[in-house]
Amino acid sequence: MLTRKQSEHIDYGIARERHPPLPHLHRIDTGENNPAFMASRPRKAPASRRSRPVAMPPARGCSKETAVDKAYLEDLAPGQVFTSDARTVVDADAIKRFGGEFDPQPWHLSETVARSTFFKELVASGWHTTALTMQLIIQTLPLSGGIIGSGVDELRWPRPVRPGDTLRLHCEIIDVQESKLRPAHGTVRVRMTTLNQNDQPVQTMIANLLAFRRPEQAA
Amino acid sequence: MLTRKQSEHIDYGIARERHPPLPHLHRIDTGENNPAFMASRPRKAPASRRSRPVAMPPARGCSKETAVDKAYLEDLAPGQVFTSDARTVVDADAIKRFGGEFDPQPWHLSETVARSTFFKELVASGWHTTALTMQLIIQTLPLSGGIIGSGVDELRWPRPVRPGDTLRLHCEIIDVQESKLRPAHGTVRVRMTTLNQNDQPVQTMIANLLAFRRPEQAA
Repeated sequence: MLTRKQSEHIDYGIARERHPPLPHLHRIDTGENNPAFMASRPRKAPASRRSRPVAMPPARGCSKETAVDKAYLEDLAPGQVFTSDARTVVDADAIKRFGGEFDPQPWHLSETVARSTFFKELVASGWHTTALTMQLIIQTLPLSGGIIGSGVDELRWPRPVRPGDTLRLHCEIIDVQESKLRPAHGTVRVRMTTLNQNDQPVQTMIANLLAFRRPEQAA
Repeated sequence: MLTRKQSEHIDYGIARERHPPLPHLHRIDTGENNPAFMASRPRKAPASRRSRPVAMPPARGCSKETAVDKAYLEDLAPGQVFTSDARTVVDADAIKRFGGEFDPQPWHLSETVARSTFFKELVASGWHTTALTMQLIIQTLPLSGGIIGSGVDELRWPRPVRPGDTLRLHCEIIDVQESKLRPAHGTVRVRMTTLNQNDQPVQTMIANLLAFRRPEQAA
């Protein structure tokens, strides 16, 4: 397991170089084929970074396509990387709506009032960032049986999400464990980094997820 | 710092006995004075548990009232306990609305479809539970400057939140650290347990929060 300091210094550019581009197996409609939709929103990220391949080392016991479409416990191994093709754009109204319902503090509610606070500007609640990350996890991690988490370690918000930010997700499998008590499944630990349009981490965490064994091999 | 196992075995009943009841310094309107409102919702918790005192050991350098109304770094010490007077009732519509927006998986969207899934019933997203807990934290922890978190450790969901559940919060300060770089504030680590109406933990975490030093003592 990497230390927190190491995780903060991952060079995502280098990580991309290591994994040769594969065909897009998890393409999500980001609206990029809709000129009117795209014209209505600023895009700071360069065009070459608009889409990201799913990079996955060879999986055991199944074809590459099966592994990526529906990954069972046996298909997962440390070092596998999944990055979101999808992106999530955050706007001020969404920040205020989430803040008003769940985290009603001035820096999540009003640009004007936020100026005289610690943050000096409107920022998203950290729990809004986790919820937006969950949207991206579902679109990014192809676990059979869906995304079922038992917990999270080392959740950090190194910088806040601001109105206009565009978020994407980088996931790396760091551990896979079979369950001794329940032969039908195991646990996969995934380091997840949510990045803004400037490739700066806005959230890092290690998620513990349930992974199901391929049914015919379950006891 | 307690281990995770120890934290799971805290006896909240005993903790209540240890701290003699204090006047309610953080009374939140739970609607209990509105008979029509109260009649419209089931309350499974016994009447004796409807309200919970804020139990706080003597604070240094300030009156008890100041400490509870607006706690600065100097007022906080390991062992201090804060419990929510407020309660949050979760209903199926809210679970589906949050799930539809942030965690669109069958067990968060439909009672019928959920029956054939791992959970076998409609349950709230874990990130919905964190967001609901944030509501309770704001009502419970009287930190001057508000609730500003840099991160969370050991976030766990030992059981899901279900429609009809009523949530409350138990917080215990486990560490207080001054900042060497920034004399105006420090960090407080708080073990937070979100409990349902049967006193079962639905979420546990250790939150790292910013605590400001009392202004006249800041450098």
